[in-house]
Formats: sequence, C-alpha cells, structure tokens
Amino acid sequence: RRKGAPEVIFGETKETAQIIAMAHGLLAGTGRAIISRLRTDSLEEVKAAFQGYTVRTRDAARAMVIYGPEFVPNNTGGHVGVISAGTSDIPVAEEAAVIVEEMGCRVTCIYDVGVAGLHRLVTPLRDLFADNVDAIIVAAGMDGALPSVVAGLAPVPVIGLPTSIGYGMGGKGVAALLSMLQTCAPGLSVVNIDNGVGAGITAALIANRVAQARERQSQ
Amino acid sequence: RRKGAPEVIFGETKETAQIIAMAHGLLAGTGRAIISRLRTDSLEEVKAAFQGYTVRTRDAARAMVIYGPEFVPNNTGGHVGVISAGTSDIPVAEEAAVIVEEMGCRVTCIYDVGVAGLHRLVTPLRDLFADNVDAIIVAAGMDGALPSVVAGLAPVPVIGLPTSIGYGMGGKGVAALLSMLQTCAPGLSVVNIDNGVGAGITAALIANRVAQARERQSQ
Amino acid sequence: RRKGAPEVIFGETKETAQIIAMAHGLLAGTGRAIISRLRTDSLEEVKAAFQGYTVRTRDAARAMVIYGPEFVPNNTGGHVGVISAGTSDIPVAEEAAVIVEEMGCRVTCIYDVGVAGLHRLVTPLRDLFADNVDAIIVAAGMDGALPSVVAGLAPVPVIGLPTSIGYGMGGKGVAALLSMLQTCAPGLSVVNIDNGVGAGITAALIANRVAQARERQSQ
Amino acid sequence: RRKGAPEVIFGETKETAQIIAMAHGLLAGTGRAIISRLRTDSLEEVKAAFQGYTVRTRDAARAMVIYGPEFVPNNTGGHVGVISAGTSDIPVAEEAAVIVEEMGCRVTCIYDVGVAGLHRLVTPLRDLFADNVDAIIVAAGMDGALPSVVAGLAPVPVIGLPTSIGYGMGGKGVAALLSMLQTCAPGLSVVNIDNGVGAGITAALIANRVAQARERQSQ
Amino acid sequence: RRKGAPEVIFGETKETAQIIAMAHGLLAGTGRAIISRLRTDSLEEVKAAFQGYTVRTRDAARAMVIYGPEFVPNNTGGHVGVISAGTSDIPVAEEAAVIVEEMGCRVTCIYDVGVAGLHRLVTPLRDLFADNVDAIIVAAGMDGALPSVVAGLAPVPVIGLPTSIGYGMGGKGVAALLSMLQTCAPGLSVVNIDNGVGAGITAALIANRVAQARERQSQ
Amino acid sequence: RRKGAPEVIFGETKETAQIIAMAHGLLAGTGRAIISRLRTDSLEEVKAAFQGYTVRTRDAARAMVIYGPEFVPNNTGGHVGVISAGTSDIPVAEEAAVIVEEMGCRVTCIYDVGVAGLHRLVTPLRDLFADNVDAIIVAAGMDGALPSVVAGLAPVPVIGLPTSIGYGMGGKGVAALLSMLQTCAPGLSVVNIDNGVGAGITAALIANRVAQARERQSQ
Amino acid sequence: RRKGAPEVIFGETKETAQIIAMAHGLLAGTGRAIISRLRTDSLEEVKAAFQGYTVRTRDAARAMVIYGPEFVPNNTGGHVGVISAGTSDIPVAEEAAVIVEEMGCRVTCIYDVGVAGLHRLVTPLRDLFADNVDAIIVAAGMDGALPSVVAGLAPVPVIGLPTSIGYGMGGKGVAALLSMLQTCAPGLSVVNIDNGVGAGITAALIANRVAQARERQSQ
Amino acid sequence: RRKGAPEVIFGETKETAQIIAMAHGLLAGTGRAIISRLRTDSLEEVKAAFQGYTVRTRDAARAMVIYGPEFVPNNTGGHVGVISAGTSDIPVAEEAAVIVEEMGCRVTCIYDVGVAGLHRLVTPLRDLFADNVDAIIVAAGMDGALPSVVAGLAPVPVIGLPTSIGYGMGGKGVAALLSMLQTCAPGLSVVNIDNGVGAGITAALIANRVAQARERQSQ
Ligand SMILES: Nc1ncnc2c1ncn2[C@@H]1O[C@H](COP(=O)(O)O)[C@@H](O)[C@H]1O
Ligand SMILES: Nc1ncnc2c1ncn2[C@@H]1O[C@H](COP(=O)(O)O)[C@@H](O)[C@H]1O
Ligand SMILES: Nc1ncnc2c1ncn2[C@@H]1O[C@H](COP(=O)(O)O)[C@@H](O)[C@H]1O
Ligand SMILES: Nc1ncnc2c1ncn2[C@@H]1O[C@H](COP(=O)(O)O)[C@@H](O)[C@H]1O
Ligand SMILES: [Mg+2]
Ligand SMILES: [Mg+2]
Ligand SMILES: [Mg+2]
Ligand SMILES: [Mg+2]
Ligand SMILES: [Mg+2]
Ligand SMILES: [Mg+2]
Ligand SMILES: [Mg+2]
Ligand SMILES: [Mg+2]
Repeated sequence: RRKGAPEVIFGETKETAQIIAMAHGLLAGTGRAIISRLRTDSLEEVKAAFQGYTVRTRDAARAMVIYGPEFVPNNTGGHVGVISAGTSDIPVAEEAAVIVEEMGCRVTCIYDVGVAGLHRLVTPLRDLFADNVDAIIVAAGMDGALPSVVAGLAPVPVIGLPTSIGYGMGGKGVAALLSMLQTCAPGLSVVNIDNGVGAGITAALIANRVAQARERQSQ
Repeated sequence: RRKGAPEVIFGETKETAQIIAMAHGLLAGTGRAIISRLRTDSLEEVKAAFQGYTVRTRDAARAMVIYGPEFVPNNTGGHVGVISAGTSDIPVAEEAAVIVEEMGCRVTCIYDVGVAGLHRLVTPLRDLFADNVDAIIVAAGMDGALPSVVAGLAPVPVIGLPTSIGYGMGGKGVAALLSMLQTCAPGLSVVNIDNGVGAGITAALIANRVAQARERQSQ
Repeated sequence: RRKGAPEVIFGETKETAQIIAMAHGLLAGTGRAIISRLRTDSLEEVKAAFQGYTVRTRDAARAMVIYGPEFVPNNTGGHVGVISAGTSDIPVAEEAAVIVEEMGCRVTCIYDVGVAGLHRLVTPLRDLFADNVDAIIVAAGMDGALPSVVAGLAPVPVIGLPTSIGYGMGGKGVAALLSMLQTCAPGLSVVNIDNGVGAGITAALIANRVAQARERQSQ
Repeated sequence: RRKGAPEVIFGETKETAQIIAMAHGLLAGTGRAIISRLRTDSLEEVKAAFQGYTVRTRDAARAMVIYGPEFVPNNTGGHVGVISAGTSDIPVAEEAAVIVEEMGCRVTCIYDVGVAGLHRLVTPLRDLFADNVDAIIVAAGMDGALPSVVAGLAPVPVIGLPTSIGYGMGGKGVAALLSMLQTCAPGLSVVNIDNGVGAGITAALIANRVAQARERQSQ
Repeated sequence: RRKGAPEVIFGETKETAQIIAMAHGLLAGTGRAIISRLRTDSLEEVKAAFQGYTVRTRDAARAMVIYGPEFVPNNTGGHVGVISAGTSDIPVAEEAAVIVEEMGCRVTCIYDVGVAGLHRLVTPLRDLFADNVDAIIVAAGMDGALPSVVAGLAPVPVIGLPTSIGYGMGGKGVAALLSMLQTCAPGLSVVNIDNGVGAGITAALIANRVAQARERQSQ
Repeated sequence: RRKGAPEVIFGETKETAQIIAMAHGLLAGTGRAIISRLRTDSLEEVKAAFQGYTVRTRDAARAMVIYGPEFVPNNTGGHVGVISAGTSDIPVAEEAAVIVEEMGCRVTCIYDVGVAGLHRLVTPLRDLFADNVDAIIVAAGMDGALPSVVAGLAPVPVIGLPTSIGYGMGGKGVAALLSMLQTCAPGLSVVNIDNGVGAGITAALIANRVAQARERQSQ
Repeated sequence: RRKGAPEVIFGETKETAQIIAMAHGLLAGTGRAIISRLRTDSLEEVKAAFQGYTVRTRDAARAMVIYGPEFVPNNTGGHVGVISAGTSDIPVAEEAAVIVEEMGCRVTCIYDVGVAGLHRLVTPLRDLFADNVDAIIVAAGMDGALPSVVAGLAPVPVIGLPTSIGYGMGGKGVAALLSMLQTCAPGLSVVNIDNGVGAGITAALIANRVAQARERQSQ
Repeated sequence: RRKGAPEVIFGETKETAQIIAMAHGLLAGTGRAIISRLRTDSLEEVKAAFQGYTVRTRDAARAMVIYGPEFVPNNTGGHVGVISAGTSDIPVAEEAAVIVEEMGCRVTCIYDVGVAGLHRLVTPLRDLFADNVDAIIVAAGMDGALPSVVAGLAPVPVIGLPTSIGYGMGGKGVAALLSMLQTCAPGLSVVNIDNGVGAGITAALIANRVAQARERQSQ
C-alpha cells in the first residue's frame, strides 16, 4: 500500500464470519491481519479460526494482530511516545500502540499521569525527549487537559487522543475532544474519540518519515 | 440582606434609564449600587447621572460601583485569589474581583499563567497558599485546563470561571465549561460562562464564613 | 494528601480485579479505601475480597468504604447539609454524604422537598441554619429548580448537584444542570450531573476550613 | 375566524411595505390589525401609515394594535394572570397580555417575583386565585424556575413562557424552556422561547371557554 | 389536593419495593394509587402485592391504577379528545387518557390519523367538535406535524404530546417536539416527549374548569 | 457541463471584485452567469459592472442572472412546482425557481398555503397534478409541516426546502429540516436550510430527465 | 395507492402480533406486505406466521417481503443504482434496493467503493451511466464523503443515504448526514440516517416517472 | 522557544493598544512579531505603529508579520503543501501558509480543487509527492470531503483544517470538522475550525523534524 499504513478491519459493526473472511483476505495479500474494536462475542471465534497462526494482542488493547507463517516484521527506527492521563484510558492508548508497532516503530508508554498528579509526568517526559522521540500520542478522557500540558512542553508534534471516559455533560469524551480542539498550546492536532487506530497511524507516519531521513544519513 | 451578598444590577438587557432608576433605589436602600455588564452605550450616561457620587471600576472589569456619601466599606478579613489563564480572560476575572472586594475581602490577582506557560504559575501560587488564601477563582477560556491544574494543587475550594474566549467548535467558553465540569481534580465547582459575579459571590461567601470564625477566635 | 481530600476509586469503568488491587493499595497507604460508582456485577466480588475488613455503604449510595484495622476516623467539627428534591435523587445525594462524612464532617440530610412541595422545605431549612451549617449540597434532577430556591434563602455557599433523573428533552440531568448554571440566586456553584463525589469534596473543603478556624478559637 | 383567535402579523422577517399592506388587509376584513415583533426600523413608518387610526401598544410590549373606526372591542368575562420572574422578561409578558386583551379577557399582571425573591409572590398570587383567574401565564428566562413554583401552587392551568434572557450555556432561554419541559409540578404546558403571542392565545382560549360556560349560566 | 390533580408515582427510576410502599401510602390517603412508566420487571410484582384490590390499566398504556375498596370515582362532565398520529404513539396517548379519566373527564380517542392519511382525520374531528370537546391532546412522533394541523382547525386549546418514535437525526421525539414548539397554528402548547401524564393533567384541568362553570349554570 | 447543471457563484462569502471576475469568466465560457446569495452591499456594484448585459432577478429571490449577448435560453419541456408555506419563505422559494428556469423548465409557483390554512392548498395542488408536473419543491420554515402534507398527496418526488424562518428552540429552520427528515410521508427528500439552489438543481434534473424521455417519444 | 409507493410496516417499535396483523391486512388489500426494521426477536415468529406464503429478504437487508399467491410483480423499466461506501453500509443499502425492486425497477448495486479507495469506483460508475441509470442512491456512514463525489460526476439525481456507522463525535451517521447536507456538488438531496425505505421510494418515483415517459414513446 | 514554534498574538479579542504593546515585546525579544486574526479596525493602526519596520501579509491571510531590522529568516529545508477546496477557504489556508513560512519551511499552495472538481486535483497532487513534500494541510468548509480524499492518496501525514464556510445545519465549519473526525482515510488528524495557526505549526513541526534528519545526513 502506497500510503505506508496497514489496512485495519473495523470489528465493531461486522459479523464474525465477515471478519474472519476479511482477515483471510488480508493474510493472503500481506501476510498479516489487524482487527480493531473486536466485540467480546467475536473474540474467541476469531481466535479459534486462526489456531495455526501467531495471534497477539497488547494488554488491554481492543486490537488483535494475526501473522501468517512468512510474515517478517520490519523495524523502521521511528520512536513514538504513548501517554495516558488515567488508568481507564489505557485500552485506547494500547490500541494506538499496537498500530504504531505494526508500522515498525518503537513505542514508549507512560500511563496514569493526568493533571491531578502532574508531578508524576515530569521525569518520564524528560527521558522521552532525551531518547529522541519523534511524535507523542496523549490519550485522555474526562477534562482532556493532559494533551495541552504535554504540547506546551514537547518539541515534537503531539496527537491528542480523546477517550470516551467520563459521565454527565461533556461525558463520553466530548469535553476531552473539545478541550483539545480549543488548546492554547502549539503543535497539538487531534483524532476522534477512541480512535486509537487513527492516532497510531498519524504518529507512525511522522516517525517513519523522520526515521527514513535518518536512515539515508547513516548509509 | 440576610444572604450576605449584595444586590447587583444586570446591565446588559436593561434600558439606561431603567439602570439609573434601579441604581438610585439601591443607593437609597444600602448606600451603594453595583452594576455588571454595562453596555458601552450606557456607560457614559450612567456616569453622568451620578456625578456627585464616588464611582469606581476595576481596570478592564465589566462592572461599576457607585457609593453614596455615607457608605462605609467593611473589611471582613477574608482572602480570595483570582487567577486568569490568558490576557483575554482578565475582564471577567476583574468582574469577580470587584464583587469579592465589595463583599469585604482582600483579593490577590495572578494573571496570564495558562497551561501553555505553567512554569509562570508555580511561585505565585505557593505565595498565595502561604498568605492563607480562603478560596481561589480561576478564569479560563479556550481549553479551560487551568482550573483543573490549580484544583490539583490547592488545599482550598476552587471556583472555575469559564470565559467566552475561543472560536470554532467548543468556542465561546463551551469547551472550557465542559472541561471544568469533567475535571479529574478534587474540590472544583463551577459557575456559568462569563459569570464573574457568581464566582465572586461564592468565593466571598466562603472566605467571609472562614474569616468570621477566625474573628471570633481572636476576640 | 496535601489537598485535604481522600483519593476515590472510580469503579464504573474498571475491571473488578483492578478495583480490588487499587483498594489494597489505598488501604496499605492510608488505612482506608473509598470506591464510587461500583457496578452491580463488581459489588459482591469486592465485598468478598475484603471480608476481614469493616465495609460500609450508606443506604442507597453508589459508594463503598473499606476501613483497615487501624483506621481512626477524625471529626473536624464541620457541618454540611444535604438536600434532595425527589426520592429518585437520593442515591446521588447519599454518595455526596458518604464523602462528606469520610472527610470528617457531620451531615444533616433533608430529602424529597422539591418545588412541587416547597412547604415541606421551610422548617427543616430553618433548623439547618440555626444548627450552624457551613455549606449545603442540593441534589435535584428534572427541572433542577430546588438549588436556586435554596440559594435564594441560605446565608452559606450552596453546591448544586444535578442528577440524571428525567426523560425527554433536557432529560438525564441536562435541564437540571443548565437551570442551575443559569440561576438567578446568589452563591450557587455547581458540579457535573451525578457527581456526588465532587459535590461532597467541595462542601467538606469549605466546612473543614471554617471548622479549623473555629477550632483554633476554642483552643 | 372559527378558531376564536385573531390573525397576527409576524413583523420580524417582513419588509415594512409588506407589513403595511397586510395590516390594511386585516383592517378591511376584521376592523383590526395586530402586529408582533415589529423591528425598530419599521415602527415609525407603520405608525405614520396609519395616522387616522387608533394605534395602541402596551408599555414595553413588542406588539402593536391598529383599530379601524368601526371596531368594537368585546369583553368575554375571561380572566388571565400574567406573571414575570424578572424585569427583563416584561416585554415578552406584555406581548402575551396584549393578545389576551385583544381576545376579550381581563388581564392581571404581577411582575418581578422570581425565585430569588419568592416572598414577593405569595400575596398577589393568593389574590389572583381569589379573583377567580382562569389561566396563568408565567414568563421567565435564565433558570426558568418560577413557572414550576407557580404550577405547584395554582389550581388552574399554567402556561410557561420562556424568555431569551440569560447568557452562557443554556442562555437565550434554552435552560428556561428545558427546565419547564422537565417540570415536577402538575398542570404546566409550554410555548416556545419569547412566544408571547402563542402563550396569550392559549390562555385566552381557555379563559374564554370557561367564561362562555359561566355566561350561559347567568342568562 | 388543592391543585385538582392526583399524585402520580413515577415508576421508571424506583425500586419495586419502593413503588409498592408509596402506593400503599396513596391508597391510605386518597383511596387510589396511580403509577406511570412501570418497568416490565416491576409489573407482575406490583399486581401481586395488590391482589385484593381493583387494578386497571388501559390497553397499551404505561400506567396502572389501583383502587381501594371505598374509592368512588367522580364524573366532572368535562370532555377531552385524545388523538394519535400513528399506532406507535398509542401507549403514550393511552397514558394521557388514563389520567384524564382519573380526573373525572370523559375521553374520546381517535388513533392513527397522521399527516400521511389526513383524510381519515376530517370526519371524527368534526364529530368531536360537535360533541362539545373542551380540550384536545394530540400525540405524535416522527415529524410531529399532526398537532399543528389539528390546532389549525380546532376551536379549543390543543396540547401537543410528542412521542419518542422515530430514528436518525431528530429521532426519539426531538423533531416532533421542536416542530410543535415552532408551530404556525394558534392555540397549541406542549409538554415534554412521552409525558402523557403532564398532557393529561393540563387537558383535564381545562375541561374540569369549563365543566364546573357549566355545572353551576344548570343548578 | 456534463452534469446538466449550471455553475452558480456563491456570493455570500466573496469580495465584490472576486464575484465580478468570476461572472466574467462564466460569461466568457457559457454565455451566462448565475450568482446566488449576493450581499446587499455587492448588488449595485455587480449590476453596474454589467450594464451592457441583460440582468434579471426574480422578485424577492436572492439570485441574479447575467446573460451575454449571444445566450439562447433552452426549453426542455420539464415542469416543476414550487410551493411555499408562508410569505417569509418566498425569497428562498424564488431562488429555487430561478435555477429551475435557468435549467430550461417551466415553473408554477403556489405561495402562502401553510398548514394553518390547508384549505387554500387543495385546488392549486390538484391543478398542478393535472398539468403534469414532474417534481415539486416545498419551501417551509417554522414547523416545516407542509412538505410532509404535500408528499402525502403528490404522485411525484417532492423536495423539502427548509427555510431559516422561526425563532426560539428549533428556530432558523432547524425544526423545519428535522421534521422533514422525520417525515411520515413517502417520496420526500431534502436539501439544507435555505439551499434554494440545491433544491432547484435536483428538481430540474428530475424534470429534464423525464422531459427528455417524453421528447424522444414525440419524435 | 395514488402515490405510487407501497405501504411499508415499520417493525422496530411494534409488537410481533401487531406486525402480523398489519401484514395480513396488507396481503388482503394489495397481495403483498413489506416490513422494514424487523427486530431479530420478531423475525422467526413472523416467518412462521406466513409459512404458506412466498417470503423473501435481500441479503443483509433489514426488510422482508411477503407475497400472496396471486401477486404479480410489475416491471416498470426504471433503473436505479445503489452504491455503498463501506461493507458496514450494505444492510441499509439493501433495504433501499428491496423497496426499489418492489416498486418495479431494476437495481444495480456497487458496494465498498468509499473515498479511501476511489479508484474502485470509476469503472462501475461509468458502466452505470452507460446502462442508462435514472437515479442513484449512495449509502455512506462515517465521513459521508462518497455521495458528494458521486454527485459531482453523475448526470442524474443522486439521493444521499447516511448510515449510522461511526463512533465518537459526529458518529452514528450524524457527520455523514451533515456532510451531505453541506455538499458542494450539484443534484444531491438526502433522506434521514438509515432511512433506506425513504431513499428507495424517492429513487423509484424518479425512475418510474422517466420509464413511463419512455414507455409511451415506444408504444 | 524550546518548542520550535513562534509565539503568535491572537488579535481578535484584544484592544489595538494591547496588540501593539505585545508586538513591541515580541520584537524586542525575538526580532519578529506575528499577529493572527487582526480585526479590520485594528489593521491600519497597527501598521501605522510599525512604520519603520518591514511588515508583510500573505494575500488574503488574516495574519500579519512584523520584522525588526536585525531579523534573519532561517530556511529549514522542510516542505509543506497547503491545499484548499474552494476559493472561500483561501484566507484560512493562507494563515496556515504564513506560519509555515515563518517556521522556515517552503510552501506549495494548490487552491480551489474541491470534490465537485476532483479532476483538477490529480496532477498538482502528483507533482507535490514528486517534490518530496513532508506534510500536507487541506483547508475545506461545507462538506469537508477533500481532506479525506487527499489522505486516501498521500503517503505523508495530512492535517485537516476545517473552515467556517457553509450555512444551514452543519454550517460554519461544523459538518466539515465532523466529517474529518469521522474520516475513513488513514493518516488524517485535525485542528479546530479556522485554526490556520494550529495547522501551520503542526505541519511545520513535522517538516522541520524530517528536514533536520535530512540535514544531518548531508553533512
Ligand atoms: N464518582 C466520581 N466522579 C468524579 N470523579 C471521581 C469519582 N470517583 C473518583 N473520582 C476521581 O477520579 C480520579 C480517580 O480516577 P481513577 O484513577 O481512574 O480511579 C480521582 O481524582 C478521584 O477523586
Ligand atoms: N410519566 C410521568 N411523566 C412526568 N411526570 C410524572 C410522570 N409520572 C409521575 N409524574 C410526576 O412526577 C412526580 C412524581 O415523582 P415521584 O415522587 O418521584 O414519583 C409527581 O409530581 C407526578 O405528577
Ligand atoms: N446558494 C448556494 N447554496 C449552495 N450551493 C451553492 C450556492 N450557490 C452556489 N453553490 C454551489 O457552490 C459552488 C460554488 O462555490 P464557489 O466556487 O465558492 O463559488 C458550486 O458548486 C455551486 O453550484
Ligand atoms: N489564530 C489563533 N488560533 C489559535 N491559537 C492562536 C491563534 N493566535 C495565537 N494563538 C495562540 O494563542 C496563544 C496566545 O494567546 P494570547 O496570550 O491571548 O495572545 C499562544 O499560545 C498562540 O500560539
Ligand atoms: Mg484527563
Ligand atoms: Mg485556558
Ligand atoms: Mg427538581
Ligand atoms: Mg427565572
Ligand atoms: Mg406524526
Ligand atoms: Mg411551515
Ligand atoms: Mg463514507
Ligand atoms: Mg469542501
């Protein structure tokens, strides 16, 4: 695919049989199938259908990857940071991390460092900059304040990833998304609520382009 | 007034003549008239109508106070902090400050310390705590992130005061208000967008009640 | 915690195992764990996991408190009123009451006194003022009119706590929240729909600061 | 007109010439023309165009009535109360009052008795019931709480008339309308924000039907 | 109850035990208990708890009435029409009809006569007028056009009762409610989506007041 | 243009000079320039710039057409009806009519026949069907009920054209658009609020395709 | 039915027994019953109730057709294209296709050709134009961009059919519908989210009118 | 500034005097002042205040840059594409272009290539890829479809920049923003409506990081 981004099967609104068929298609074509937002009732059936294959999921992530026998992972040299404000934001953050890894980047995760405990953020963020990170994804629900704080500090592009955590007015990620769109901090762009896949692709596209330029240099 | 809060004339939707009449009524009754959100076209006319009186406004505040000759300001001993995220938030912050002062409290203002420049916040905030502040008002528009950050640090109640600064989706203070309602930080309550009067009354009611308890102690 | 507010585990979006682990963490650190919005399917499992401990819930409240063997409750001398408009608002009001108590305050509850039966409100409200209440929480859904009525009468700060009761347009607490934000009465600030924890922390922070000033006096 | 309600020209979105032409049409047909929401720039021109006629407006009302030389007002014996929460709600309340009068009813107005000063409401409301009122219109902006309070007390149908007073979230009458739709009190129906004409017609239709039944009795 | 409207237990957000207790309370006080929006899981339990009593429901209505042994229904002589646009609107229309009947009025129902089949409306509507109807309730979901059509024809007050029928944008009754609020027809006031109880009380209050005037006449 | 629809210059957000330049471009290319939503401040300047040309506008329509000297209007034989609910909807209806005519169709206009006066609709609508109309545009603001009524009667496709007439909740055409989207009547599709150009193009595309088939027949 | 469109039973909000009764009614009257949006729990019961009849459903479509023994399908000669952006949009697209077929038109379906893979669209679209299509329905969720792209290319009317696919802000078809309403392309009108029935009727009304004109020609 | 992005003065909500003072501050500090969204009434006054300085604006852009005598522009070697859908989107696109240039990148602009004329897009887009573009900004109002189309084709990160062009439902950029958030295409992130500054900073941060890696390579 010219775009440099893998095809991802959106599991939520599809029949299990349809998902399995599409995964077989991708495996035949590219040696790998990535499925996001797999419903719990599809999970086991899909796993069963691919018993001979290597199947991996990241922790709480709502994403699954199936590798064909000949699949060779590539390593681009790109580096992406994934930060979450709360523990409830982790599944969406992990979805982004899966995509970033499948696009060949290294991922560093820093979780549960929201604005109610900003002191926990300072040191790992400094380390991330020192480790030459190319782009940072910040997942946050509720007030969505963390991406603005990180974008105010980071010398690289930040992708705001609102999560559907929070209740009442502005709940389900709405306040988080709006607050990110209204940010006072420079260099923050956003994707939709819970769109870990979209955040991952954008961050990896950035990191891979930088890595490619670095690569050429070292040749 | 048993409530402990002064009557405030809401100028925005009233005829100038109506405002002047109501101000005369308050002066006759309490020796003082406070007018908020005075339209520019009313301002000079109202001033002209009270030439013999002491009239004051605070800086950019959209509020005016007229004192009768016998008015004696009281000093309760309460202390309120008023913080603003940006320079555009100052008029609303000042409206709150006027009300707090007219309710007899001391006010400390810290302006233009939003999340894009958090380092400017740390020292004045520490000083405020050391100076025994009773309640803090935080005015912020756009992302509205600052009140959450302050409430995560302050040992006193914080009143979030969203301002109608910001454009596009979530603009005019909507994202700021929603983000404050969704706060992850403890001890933050809010008033409506641009409602400096409401924030000021709530903060002063808190400070005055604490001050009253302190007073009794020192007697 | 410097803030003077306890850490509260938000149960709704967490796995039961995760909640139990976090509760053990808090018990080890502070001798007490407070959990809010525990899902029904987690309730029994969590109780079972802490069989040797003292576990309490208030009536219909969606909050649970687990005490370690050495926990010594403190009593600050603060006094908070908790009022509800209807019987359906009680669970959220009780969530606020639990937090207020755990922060060391005395709580007086007055329930089912909404605007369709205002005469039931007058006497208990007068008693509350006479009993030196420091702050009042008013929980109301549907029209959300009661907090404005109480704030028009009370000489102390009032915290409006909208509840998700009501259907149709403006239902699920939206009209209640908006009506409180638009209040004509002085001294009313609000928290988000169903946020009993937030209302409780704000009210207790106020009451405890007043109580602390009173304390010093009597020494 | 079989409906029992007069035709009313909606002035806001019409050219002045168009309004004058339509008014001439109504005068020719029924001997009277009622125009609502006349823009300021049309007002004088319309007045000038009907110099030989009797033209009346009620106080601050945004409505004008032009009578032909032969018009004979009728008096149905119906009685309608018109209450407003604040002084800013008066123009809309007066628009309703004009319509009620033009439909032949007696009107009793009680203004500026909102929830922040409920004690001012009690006596005039009791007098209204004693004076055999048939229906009550309650105009309120901002929190829109007053119609619910009145409907909780009144033994007759109440029509909630939200006004576009108020700023910030839920402003321009939105919170007022939603709060009325969510009322806990029995017997409250509503019309749209600022729709004094609609409220007036509904109240007068009720009062006139009752009056008609009373009439027959006394014959 | 001075208001002339019965107390109604709102079943939807209450525990079954709580509903039964409240019903016993009302039976003891007034000889009758009305419950609306009873959840399916409560229905049988409530019925079982009142086996010795007369229990009635109207057709598809989401309302139940329990009569004590000594309850004597009254008959006021008022007459209310209840019209529905579609068959899906009938349960809400029936809820209104139950309330109207319990308030002592006669009810005439005309169902499934929406704007896609207006010809079916003409004759029954003419009969309704001839039969001296005092007020008309029109239940409609989706486009909500029928109440405007009826109000354009009827010489009595019309109460628009939007129902939560319809999907997509403006679905769940939102378009229906907004369209009724924006009506071009005179004499239409509205209640909230699915609020059959509210529509019933308003219509019966009107009809009973007219009937009372008629009564006095015939004495 | 392969599409069969003329290019239309959207005047509202363009500088006058830019409009004139674009009109010259279209005149050079196709011999005709159509401009919609021309701001009042541009109108005279644009007219002046094309003094040697034939310029026409339809009545109140917010659209202008400029013909080059060699432009030959074509006549397709298509027939489109344009109906408006109120007099305030006429400018938008006329904008649609201009486009329909410029696309070579005959237009029949029926204005001011809204649901509050449905009897005025019956005869002209019957005549329209008899006169072999191919498609009908119905412009309506406020409640937007008329398009549903017409679509319930007409044997041809109906295009709902909501107009920005109406105030309060659901005002500026929102209720009208939603009500049309929720229609119970068959064969109604819609365009956006005030989009007379879009309605005109769709109706003319339909009529011209039918006319073309008719043409072939008569050859 | 004079309108030329079949009656369709809306299954979603109806009891199964009610659906069966209504289907019997339609079979008796017209020899055919069409049911849309049948809930899964009704499906088997309805099938069982019509075992002697021919019952058909199209693929994933949420619509069922029951034919009486004497039903003779007609063939009008109209031709409608049905295009879907993604695979998740197919059930709604198929609902439209069923209706189009039942109204006697030929249907050509082109699925899964959304804007992320526009190259897949070009050839089948060109074939569709060559095959003399009369109207095109384009079903799309998420960004809803495809209908605008098709309307920019097609010489016939296009009906935008937004589907409730998509999550986060603008999800459930809202962004798709709004984007279609805001289209820059000429000749696109829309129906509500998931309203396959409405799109099908409009497209078939267009195609059948064109076909009828063609027919007459060949006679 | 460590972030790599210049400070930008937000002109819209500031007094002219305040803007001039802030610009002097930036000139003293960094040798350059950038002002965005300058109100027309401030423009001439600001220009007059900096007569000795080099002042530039890009075409229709709502941004102004003032250079001190010693300012040396840098050239990073980054390359950013800026595409607009319509001519009305150009001012916002140009605001982004100004920022990109001030951050040292080369800019290539491609304007007026929206989905109603996609054929105009193909060649310049291919040239852009060939010319080694690092990131692309796509400004679009109304349907907002173009960014999805470009992101479906481009091998680099795309930043969607919705503009406030469009009227009716979803107007003022709302549909455009939502459609971009719901994109089906990979690698598209967004900023708020009309936020050319934010889009420019993000794109330039990406391009400069890539350029920096390239630089090192060629050393
Ligand atoms: N019911 C609640 N509503 C609002 N905030 C809560 C609630 N329960 C806990 N919190 C706060 O949310 C944060 C806990 O988030 P978490 O780390 O995800 O458990 C803490 O700051 C709590 O004080
Ligand atoms: N379905 C209903 N819709 C609206 N109001 C209702 C409904 N059922 C009961 N009510 C009103 O709600 C109040 C009862 O609330 P509760 O005391 O919570 O049962 C009374 O004022 C009733 O008249
Ligand atoms: N009033 C209008 N409403 C909707 N679309 C319009 C209108 N006037 C022109 N257009 C369309 O908008 C596009 C012109 O945009 P522009 O190039 O900015 O003038 C063309 O595709 C026109 O067909
Ligand atoms: N047009 C704009 N849109 C969004 N942010 C802006 C804009 N112009 C300036 N800013 C940012 O807003 C902040 C300046 O705010 P202020 O101090 O009020 O001038 C800085 O962080 C700027 O980078
Ligand atoms: Mg957060
Ligand atoms: Mg801020
Ligand atoms: Mg209440
Ligand atoms: Mg009020
Ligand atoms: Mg209907
Ligand atoms: Mg209309
Ligand atoms: Mg799509
Ligand atoms: Mg566009």
